Amino acid sequence: MSDLGITPRSINYADWYNDLVLKAKLADYSPVRGCMVIRPHGYAIWELMQRALDDMFKATGHVNACFPLLIPKSFFSREAAHVEGFAKECAIVTHYRLMNDPNGEGVVVDPEAKLEEELIIRPTSETIIWNTYKDWIQSYRDLPILINQWANVMRWERRTRLFLRTAEFLWQEGHTAHATNEEAEQEALTILEIYRSFCEEWMCVPAIAGLKTENEKFAGAHHSYCIEAMVQDLRAIQAGTSHHLGQNFAKAFDVKFQNANGELEYVYATSWGVSTRLIGTLVMAHSDDKGLVLPPKLAPIQVVFVPMGRDEQTREKTFALSDKIAAELSEAGLRCKVDKREKESPGFKFNDWELQGACVRVEIGPRDLEAGTCVLAVRDTGEKQTVQIAHACTQIRTLLEETGQRLFKKALELRESNTQRIDDWDSFEKQFQGEGGCGFVLAHWDGTTETEQTIAEKTKATIRCIPLKPLEAGDNQPGRCVLTGKPSEQRVVFAKAY
Amino acid sequence: MSDLGITPRSINYADWYNDLVLKAKLADYSPVRGCMVIRPHGYAIWELMQRALDDMFKATGHVNACFPLLIPKSFFSREAAHVEGFAKECAIVTHYRLMNDPNGEGVVVDPEAKLEEELIIRPTSETIIWNTYKDWIQSYRDLPILINQWANVMRWERRTRLFLRTAEFLWQEGHTAHATNEEAEQEALTILEIYRSFCEEWMCVPAIAGLKTENEKFAGAHHSYCIEAMVQDLRAIQAGTSHHLGQNFAKAFDVKFQNANGELEYVYATSWGVSTRLIGTLVMAHSDDKGLVLPPKLAPIQVVFVPMGRDEQTREKTFALSDKIAAELSEAGLRCKVDKREKESPGFKFNDWELQGACVRVEIGPRDLEAGTCVLAVRDTGEKQTVQIAHACTQIRTLLEETGQRLFKKALELRESNTQRIDDWDSFEKQFQGEGGCGFVLAHWDGTTETEQTIAEKTKATIRCIPLKPLEAGDNQPGRCVLTGKPSEQRVVFAKAY
Repeated sequence: MSDLGITPRSINYADWYNDLVLKAKLADYSPVRGCMVIRPHGYAIWELMQRALDDMFKATGHVNACFPLLIPKSFFSREAAHVEGFAKECAIVTHYRLMNDPNGEGVVVDPEAKLEEELIIRPTSETIIWNTYKDWIQSYRDLPILINQWANVMRWERRTRLFLRTAEFLWQEGHTAHATNEEAEQEALTILEIYRSFCEEWMCVPAIAGLKTENEKFAGAHHSYCIEAMVQDLRAIQAGTSHHLGQNFAKAFDVKFQNANGELEYVYATSWGVSTRLIGTLVMAHSDDKGLVLPPKLAPIQVVFVPMGRDEQTREKTFALSDKIAAELSEAGLRCKVDKREKESPGFKFNDWELQGACVRVEIGPRDLEAGTCVLAVRDTGEKQTVQIAHACTQIRTLLEETGQRLFKKALELRESNTQRIDDWDSFEKQFQGEGGCGFVLAHWDGTTETEQTIAEKTKATIRCIPLKPLEAGDNQPGRCVLTGKPSEQRVVFAKAY
Repeated sequence: MSDLGITPRSINYADWYNDLVLKAKLADYSPVRGCMVIRPHGYAIWELMQRALDDMFKATGHVNACFPLLIPKSFFSREAAHVEGFAKECAIVTHYRLMNDPNGEGVVVDPEAKLEEELIIRPTSETIIWNTYKDWIQSYRDLPILINQWANVMRWERRTRLFLRTAEFLWQEGHTAHATNEEAEQEALTILEIYRSFCEEWMCVPAIAGLKTENEKFAGAHHSYCIEAMVQDLRAIQAGTSHHLGQNFAKAFDVKFQNANGELEYVYATSWGVSTRLIGTLVMAHSDDKGLVLPPKLAPIQVVFVPMGRDEQTREKTFALSDKIAAELSEAGLRCKVDKREKESPGFKFNDWELQGACVRVEIGPRDLEAGTCVLAVRDTGEKQTVQIAHACTQIRTLLEETGQRLFKKALELRESNTQRIDDWDSFEKQFQGEGGCGFVLAHWDGTTETEQTIAEKTKATIRCIPLKPLEAGDNQPGRCVLTGKPSEQRVVFAKAY
C-alpha cells in the first residue's frame, strides 16, 4: 500500500483498480446495491468522451432523441431471443404511490396503487423504440432513421465493479432503421469504425474490431460487431458493440414500410452502444501505482501549474506568471489549472496531481523567476525538463502530443508482446492456466458453439471476436481447430475477459 | 383547423399547443402513461438549452456529476416536510427479476426476487445526494461543493401535458453545500440570476424573479426563489426554481463540518433546477398558428435555404449558390440547412420550415440567378425582402439579431399590457372569472397562507411570486391586502398558472 492508500498493481490488480477509482475521486459507492456515484472528476472524463463521440455521430448524420425510461413488461416478450438471452435481471416498477405507515413512522408502499402492467427500467431500449418507430415509418421516404440517445440504463448484475459492471450505468444507444439489408450492414460497420477510431485516437487504446460469435452476439441481433481492448493485467475488455438486427425487431413490432415499388417490407435495423465502462477501460489501460495516467484528449486537466514561493511577494510573482502562461494555453483550447492552494505543500500538490492524472505539471519557483525558466514534468514518464518561459507553451503542446502517441504505442506493445498464435491444445490450455489475464491467443476454431463452450469451461477463455482484418499476415488463412482439429476459416481471439 | 392540422390558438389554445408539439415533431406520446418521447427536433432545442446553461453553471464554478437513479424508500422519511409535501406519487421498484410465465406465454415477475427495501425512482435527488455528502464533508476545507447533474426524474402526475407536466422529464438539478448561511443565500441568488438571464436572453421570454410564498415553496426548503413567465394565453409558467434549503437536509442526513475554529456545524445547502418544461414554455411564448417561432439562439435550424428551378441545370446552380452561402454562414457559427428534397414543391417546403421554426428562409430561384439576388423571408413577421447575394450573409445576421430582440419585445408588451394593479376584491375576483389565463394581477396580500388559499379557492389564482424588484415604481410600497384589508408589505403576483 502506497502513501496514497493505493494497492500496487503487482500486489493485487483488482484492488489497485478499486483503490484508484475511489482515491482519484472518479466514482464512489452508493447505498443502492450495485449503483455508483460518478463524481465530478469521473464525470468530466465522461463529458469529454460524450462530446467527442457525439460530434462523430452527428458528422455521420445521426441525431439525438430521448425515449422513456420505463418499458411495459409485455414488450420484452415480443422478440423471443431478446427476452431469452437478455432481459430477465432488471428493476421492476410495480406501484406508483407511497403512503404514511399506518402502524408507525415513515412511509410504506400504498397497496391500492398497483400498476395494471408492471414497468421495467430499460436495460436497453430496442423494444420501446421499435414500438415507437412503428408510428413513424410508413414509406421508404421516412427512412433511414438515424437516432442516438444518451441515457441511463439498469441491469440487475450480481457481481459489480465500479465503471466496468454496475447495475445502473450511463451509455449512448443508437437505434437506426433502414430500407435495405446492405444499408443496415454499412451502418453497423460505420459505427464500429467510429468506436475503433475513438478508442485508438482519443483513448490511446488499441482496439481489435471483429465479429462476435453466435454464442456471444446480442440477444435479438442477426450478428454483432465489437471492439476488444487489452488492459494491463492482460485481460480483454469489450469496449463497444454494434449490432445488425436484421428484421428481427421490425417483425416483433410489425414495422413495415412501402418501398419505391409500392411493396410492403419489414424494416432493417441496427443498434450500437458504448458506456461508462469506457472510463474503467481507460483507467485500466494506462494508469500506474501513483494514480491516473490519462490521454491528453480526455484529461479534464491537461496542464497543472504549481507556483511556489516562501514569501508572499515571490508567490505573487509565480502565481502571476502561471496565470499568464495558463491563459495563453487556455486561449489555444487547452484545459489548465493553476493550483493556488495555500495550505498544501508543493510535494503534496505534486502527488495529488499525479493521482488525478494531469498530463503535464509546470513548476515555477523563485529560482525560475530569476532564470526566466520553468520546470515541466511529464506524468506518464516522470521526466522533468527545464525550459525558457518563452518556449514553455510550445514545449507543453509538444509534450502533450508526445504523451498521446507514447501511451498508444506502449499499450500496443503490451498487446503485441502478449498475443500468441497457438495451434495445439496442450499449449493453449497451459497458456490460460494462470490467475488473472493471460493475454490474447489467436487460435483456430471450428465455428461451433459446442467447441466454444467446451473451451470456455476448460480454460475460462472466451472468443472475444473474429477479427475483421488479420492482426498479422496469415491470421486470416484456414487451419485446424485448436481443440477438435476440424477445419477453421481463420484465427479468432481468445482471452479471459472482464 | 389549418392545412397543417393545427387548431388555431383562437379556437382552442390547449389543442393548438398539443397539435403543434406533435406536428412539429418535438415530442410524441408513448405507451407508458404520462411519459413522452422527445423527438430529434425537440431534443435539438434541449441540447442548445443544455449547452448554454451548462456553460453558465461552469463559468460560476459548478461541476457535473451523476448520482443513482434509485433511492431507498426510507431516505424520503428523513426530512419530514420533504416527504409530506412532495414525494408520495412516485414510481416504486419492488422486484429485480422476471421469469418465464409457468402458466403460459410471456414473462411474469419472479415473486422470489423481492427487494428487502423498495427503491424509488428519483423524483428529485436531495435525499440521496445529502446521504452521499455526509461521506464527502468533514472540514470547511471540503466546502463549498458546487455540483450539478443532468438527469431524468419521475413523478407520477395524474394530469399530464407534453413538456409542461410529464411523469418522466429531463432536467438539471444543482445541489450545493456551504459553510455559511450567507454563502448559500448568495448561491441561490446567483443561480436565480442565471435562470432569469437565460430565460430573457436565450429564450426571449421576460421573467419575473421572485420569492415563493411559504405555501408554494419547495417541501424541505427554508425558502424558494423562482422565475415566472407569461405565455400567450395569459397564464403563468414557473420556468425555474432555486431553493435555499438552510440546514434542513444536513440535519436530516447528519452532515456536519468542522469550521475554521474547530467547531462542528451543520452544512448549509441549496438546490435548483430547470427542466424540459422550458421547451413547453418556449413554444407557448412565441409560436403561432403556422407553427413554431423560435428565438434564433435556440433554433436548431436558424437559416433554411430553398433553392428552386424547373430544370436540372437551374437547380444545379441554385443548389450550388445555396451551398456556398450556407457554408459561409456555417463557418461563422450559424446553423443552416439547404433543403434539396426533390419530390417536394417549394410551397410545401415553405410551410414545412414555417412549422419547424427556421428563423430565416432564403429563396433562390432562376430569376435570382439572373439578377444576382435572393429573397429573405423572416419567420415571425412573415416579411420578405430581396437582397443582393453579396449582402445576403450580413443581412441574414441582422435579421436574426432583430428577430431575437423583436420576440422579447413582443412578449414583454404582452405581459405589460396584461398586468394590472388591483386593490379591491370585486375587481380582483372579476378579473379571474374568465376561462383560461387572465394575465398577472399585482395586488397586496396580508402574508398569511390562509388568505392565499382562500383567494385560490375563490379565483383559481395563486401567488406566483413575491417579486424581488418592483416591476413598476410603487409595487414594493406597503398597502392593504386585497381580500382582508390587513397590512401588506408589497404587491405580489397573482395569476392562473400551468
